[in-house]
Amino acid sequence: MSGSTFGHLFRVTNFGESHGPAIGCVIDGCPPGLALSEGDIQPELDRRRPGTSRHVTQRQEPDSIEILSGVHEGRTTGTPIALVIRNVDSRSRDYANLLDTFRPGHADYTYHRKYGFRDPRGGGRASARLTAPMVAAGAVAKKWLREQHGTTFAGRMTQLGDIEIPFEGWEHVDANPFFAANVSDIARLEAYMDELRKAGDSCGARIEVVAGPMPVGLGEPLFDKLDAEIAYAMMGINAVKGVEIGAGFGAVTQRGSTHGDELTPHGFLTNHAGGVLGGISTGQDLVVSIAVKPTSSIRLPRRSIDRAGQPTTVETHGRHDPCVGIRATPIAEAMLALVVMDHALRHRAQCGDVRHDVPPVPGSLGNA
Amino acid sequence: MSGSTFGHLFRVTNFGESHGPAIGCVIDGCPPGLALSEGDIQPELDRRRPGTSRHVTQRQEPDSIEILSGVHEGRTTGTPIALVIRNVDSRSRDYANLLDTFRPGHADYTYHRKYGFRDPRGGGRASARLTAPMVAAGAVAKKWLREQHGTTFAGRMTQLGDIEIPFEGWEHVDANPFFAANVSDIARLEAYMDELRKAGDSCGARIEVVAGPMPVGLGEPLFDKLDAEIAYAMMGINAVKGVEIGAGFGAVTQRGSTHGDELTPHGFLTNHAGGVLGGISTGQDLVVSIAVKPTSSIRLPRRSIDRAGQPTTVETHGRHDPCVGIRATPIAEAMLALVVMDHALRHRAQCGDVRHDVPPVPGSLGNA
Amino acid sequence: MSGSTFGHLFRVTNFGESHGPAIGCVIDGCPPGLALSEGDIQPELDRRRPGTSRHVTQRQEPDSIEILSGVHEGRTTGTPIALVIRNVDSRSRDYANLLDTFRPGHADYTYHRKYGFRDPRGGGRASARLTAPMVAAGAVAKKWLREQHGTTFAGRMTQLGDIEIPFEGWEHVDANPFFAANVSDIARLEAYMDELRKAGDSCGARIEVVAGPMPVGLGEPLFDKLDAEIAYAMMGINAVKGVEIGAGFGAVTQRGSTHGDELTPHGFLTNHAGGVLGGISTGQDLVVSIAVKPTSSIRLPRRSIDRAGQPTTVETHGRHDPCVGIRATPIAEAMLALVVMDHALRHRAQCGDVRHDVPPVPGSLGNA
Amino acid sequence: MSGSTFGHLFRVTNFGESHGPAIGCVIDGCPPGLALSEGDIQPELDRRRPGTSRHVTQRQEPDSIEILSGVHEGRTTGTPIALVIRNVDSRSRDYANLLDTFRPGHADYTYHRKYGFRDPRGGGRASARLTAPMVAAGAVAKKWLREQHGTTFAGRMTQLGDIEIPFEGWEHVDANPFFAANVSDIARLEAYMDELRKAGDSCGARIEVVAGPMPVGLGEPLFDKLDAEIAYAMMGINAVKGVEIGAGFGAVTQRGSTHGDELTPHGFLTNHAGGVLGGISTGQDLVVSIAVKPTSSIRLPRRSIDRAGQPTTVETHGRHDPCVGIRATPIAEAMLALVVMDHALRHRAQCGDVRHDVPPVPGSLGNA
Repeated sequence: MSGSTFGHLFRVTNFGESHGPAIGCVIDGCPPGLALSEGDIQPELDRRRPGTSRHVTQRQEPDSIEILSGVHEGRTTGTPIALVIRNVDSRSRDYANLLDTFRPGHADYTYHRKYGFRDPRGGGRASARLTAPMVAAGAVAKKWLREQHGTTFAGRMTQLGDIEIPFEGWEHVDANPFFAANVSDIARLEAYMDELRKAGDSCGARIEVVAGPMPVGLGEPLFDKLDAEIAYAMMGINAVKGVEIGAGFGAVTQRGSTHGDELTPHGFLTNHAGGVLGGISTGQDLVVSIAVKPTSSIRLPRRSIDRAGQPTTVETHGRHDPCVGIRATPIAEAMLALVVMDHALRHRAQCGDVRHDVPPVPGSLGNA
Repeated sequence: MSGSTFGHLFRVTNFGESHGPAIGCVIDGCPPGLALSEGDIQPELDRRRPGTSRHVTQRQEPDSIEILSGVHEGRTTGTPIALVIRNVDSRSRDYANLLDTFRPGHADYTYHRKYGFRDPRGGGRASARLTAPMVAAGAVAKKWLREQHGTTFAGRMTQLGDIEIPFEGWEHVDANPFFAANVSDIARLEAYMDELRKAGDSCGARIEVVAGPMPVGLGEPLFDKLDAEIAYAMMGINAVKGVEIGAGFGAVTQRGSTHGDELTPHGFLTNHAGGVLGGISTGQDLVVSIAVKPTSSIRLPRRSIDRAGQPTTVETHGRHDPCVGIRATPIAEAMLALVVMDHALRHRAQCGDVRHDVPPVPGSLGNA
Repeated sequence: MSGSTFGHLFRVTNFGESHGPAIGCVIDGCPPGLALSEGDIQPELDRRRPGTSRHVTQRQEPDSIEILSGVHEGRTTGTPIALVIRNVDSRSRDYANLLDTFRPGHADYTYHRKYGFRDPRGGGRASARLTAPMVAAGAVAKKWLREQHGTTFAGRMTQLGDIEIPFEGWEHVDANPFFAANVSDIARLEAYMDELRKAGDSCGARIEVVAGPMPVGLGEPLFDKLDAEIAYAMMGINAVKGVEIGAGFGAVTQRGSTHGDELTPHGFLTNHAGGVLGGISTGQDLVVSIAVKPTSSIRLPRRSIDRAGQPTTVETHGRHDPCVGIRATPIAEAMLALVVMDHALRHRAQCGDVRHDVPPVPGSLGNA
Repeated sequence: MSGSTFGHLFRVTNFGESHGPAIGCVIDGCPPGLALSEGDIQPELDRRRPGTSRHVTQRQEPDSIEILSGVHEGRTTGTPIALVIRNVDSRSRDYANLLDTFRPGHADYTYHRKYGFRDPRGGGRASARLTAPMVAAGAVAKKWLREQHGTTFAGRMTQLGDIEIPFEGWEHVDANPFFAANVSDIARLEAYMDELRKAGDSCGARIEVVAGPMPVGLGEPLFDKLDAEIAYAMMGINAVKGVEIGAGFGAVTQRGSTHGDELTPHGFLTNHAGGVLGGISTGQDLVVSIAVKPTSSIRLPRRSIDRAGQPTTVETHGRHDPCVGIRATPIAEAMLALVVMDHALRHRAQCGDVRHDVPPVPGSLGNA
């Protein structure tokens, strides 16, 4: 059932396949009056696009965005914003040999079984290429949230395969191919990836994304809690196998006397909650961590079956990311922005006239 | 915005507060003709209800379910099934002192800020008591899935605070107060809880839930992937801070040549995927793990602020679970069943006439 | 698929059957802080309830409303409001003979075919009794709209069978059993109904509902236009076969130079639009008209088939409204209020910060 | 709130403005395996497109459809189908003078008030041009319904302004510019339109659409009844002010002994219900009638206000349909097909395994 729309009030409907003529999305529900042009979106797409270093797929896609509707004289009109990106570097022949087998760990098998057949070119609909329209939509959300609430989004790789990446400063993130907030370990990461590529294998990664300052009160219990919808958004990104909010799995071994973030008139003293209590934003920074599995398209031979159910061996050549986690950072930021944007509108709908009597608590004190 | 409905086609709308007259839910979209009575639901509620051991809250609630609609002569009619549970052991005075302060780590603060005021009795709407109607709805989903697809659900605690709980057999789960699939370590868990309770503190837990055998093909990319919706369902359970599918965060350090589950005509050889590829079920068992944080209502004093924004200290007395994770197992099972049920209907809607040419692959081989 | 929820942000989930233990609804998304008690709802239910004159069904139902959740210390909390009405005057034996045949013009046949079997008692789920919870939910919407926007709702019967009912004043509506804004023709209507009842037949009716003053800007094109959702709400009421906004079918023979309502600084000069242009409220009164078909449960014998497909004859005895349109007025008002309420929240979500430069235009001038 | 998506399972998200670069839609939820190419869609668009006779707008738009996604090797893949139509004959200068005033009867005023400003070119988003993507989406639905259920759709103009158009045969519909199922009165209709155009005025119309043979059981009470959703779809078409199912407003003066359609083993004897009982399809033909108001863009001068609230006079020149009802027939057919399609999938979701014991009743007998 029609699962290609993300969001409830700020709704993004995604379309396209890796090697079709175009990919894109329609954003419905954007507030009117927001200044918007392609120039607001393209920089985010450029952060995600392939071919920017030797550590990612060498497919050459400019990912040029075109706005087809919803903007008049440089401002959003409140009507749907259609965004299109033409695919220009399709090489469908790379995938012809994949049609009759199923790559282990890949969606080949499940798409074939669900829909009866599949578009095998570049993974078809299952390709991570379909995250590009979400990055574009996320750029619109980010702009509105920055203007209305001052909220900004940042992300970084915190682990590449076996290598943990210490935080050294957000300013480093855009200065290396890994989105690492780090300068000391980059050479080591490069060497790790070079070795991996040579081996024809792939590796996983861990990514952290944060947002702040956050408005208090976003999230719609009982089910559309802010953290529940963040988990939905993150787990839906290609290759993600785990999601944590705040302390995450670390909370298992914490005592309540440690985990519960104490409040003072000057702010929260810690942020184990990751910015969400009872499914509602506290005003502290949102802190989200995700696990990205290793890419399934590898050169090493693996056992599988063919469409007739017979045993076979699959090796995947062509252009692939040896660590799909490398490009996941701007994607995760975008998905987080889309969740927060949707909830900003949802909160305004129900609680737009709520007044309360609690003095403001600075959210930032415990975020460090 | 109205976040109290779970699911798209099998829709469960939850209502009630911890100390109001009643809690319950309305299930809309249940297929007609399913044999159903209170007797199908009550046993699941009994697994979750409070007061069953000294390690959980001592509130005495029979959690007796009443079916108000949607069933005629013992069968579902296809119309909404309203389920009601009367609250019988409310002690609202326990919470009067909480009205003017905010427990660290609790939703007190965010509910107050979002809605302008709150029902403080027993956590009001934020109470884990509201999971009872979901367990009831889950019982309906479980029954239909078992009859239509043979799918069953099981869950177990895999870690209590610092103590990992080895798997020794599913048959043990109902024989101890912890839902541990273990018999050797129960005494140690009891002692751990007794010490914790004496200290007035609380602890976290890790829970694993599995489902199988699973139909192949459930899940609706691009966003309503089966794993994305499982993450949404699990992260929405009270106190959950992390969700993993299959290898989860372990996938970060796996190589692609290890992670990707190989296929043979006799089945998958491993199940690192946790039963989902590309957001669609593979036919292997679903394997989901969640992190439950320590309860925020503890006797130890903690710093907070009052409604006037002044510093204060909060100690929480009354009846609380020292490890809310203990009762989380039947809840997580129920939420998983609700997700699978919804997707079974969604898949039938779009792909009810799909035929494919792949011989059946046993899902179970790699599940061990 | 789960069609028992009405609305997008102010969501009402209806449950129950005519002769089950209870009927009711859950309202999700109500803004917090609204003063609310049973006393706000009961008067609206009393307008709709059966047994209040000899011209409607003689079933005796007090339709006493109970609020199960969502209200704390007399104010809505922003969480789901569950409303329950116990059925007290069920006489299921009246319907036993209906189980094996299908009343012409009734949902007996379609429910049986859709769901495989049906609850025959009092029409089961297809009974107009299920409009009672909507009248209750509508009372909540009416109260909020009156307090926030000053909007009020009114309705009247404009035609009973062959008899057109001239408008003589809103003050008459509650002074006769027909909801007629008329005092001169009541005796004629009474005689018409007495004759009809004696004949064992039933008749149709036309109802008009209006709302005003209306906020400008409600409605969400392209599809969730205010008038489109009004049409959906009205056509969904039992027995309704036609819906008109403003001039309605009269617009077919109007010229554009007549139909288009001219604007002046003092207001619109006419209201052929019925308060909606381009699917968005103009600020003029909403004016909606509906056609209610004659009841299908009549004493006169009619040809039908039985479950074996054999020809038979059906006469319906028991308690039925000879003109279901008589009680339709408070129902139509409630449904209109629910649509306007939902759109007030939806508009605030997307356009809550919109500023425009047009001086206010009084909406009322052309409403007469 | 994001009202640009139509349907629940077969979802169509519409985008574009009359004079933007392109219009289009994304269809999500289409069953996989349907043979589909532009050639299946273009003929329906050609029926609706402007410039085909002197009685409609002279804007020249080829309305060439391009499929951007969702089709692989000539079959739908089950993933979103993006359809794009480039606008080629925009003349934005025609509308510059409209920016500061509001046409009586037009959405100019409400869009401006709702969104704070508007795209005035050709009516922007409020233009009937946006029905083209729905006609395209409807062509996909029609094809699937024809192949799966044998259902076909037809429509005709039954009244043009003051002139009623007798039914003489469906074969005439495509042989005149009015979609009249008539050959005798065409000259009279032509003269009527010529006179109207000369006068600078516009007129209304009445359109009837039918569908059959229909599967029994479609429709989802309590609210998403088949007729309720048809009413929503029809009232959402530009300029529609009234909707009738079956007898429609004629039911007001019918007796129950006439209105209720009798059943025999050979079929229903009449079809006053219009193919729907209790909100669920009976298997008889769906019969729907709509009232289309006269176009608001006319050459005759009309009183209005400008953006400063001062009185002014508006005359509309440029290219407009003097009777927007003329092109409404293929639009109404498409919207009906979209509703039926959505409900076919919804019904399969919930009731895909329902079995009943009633012999088939031919639906067609009473349709004449």
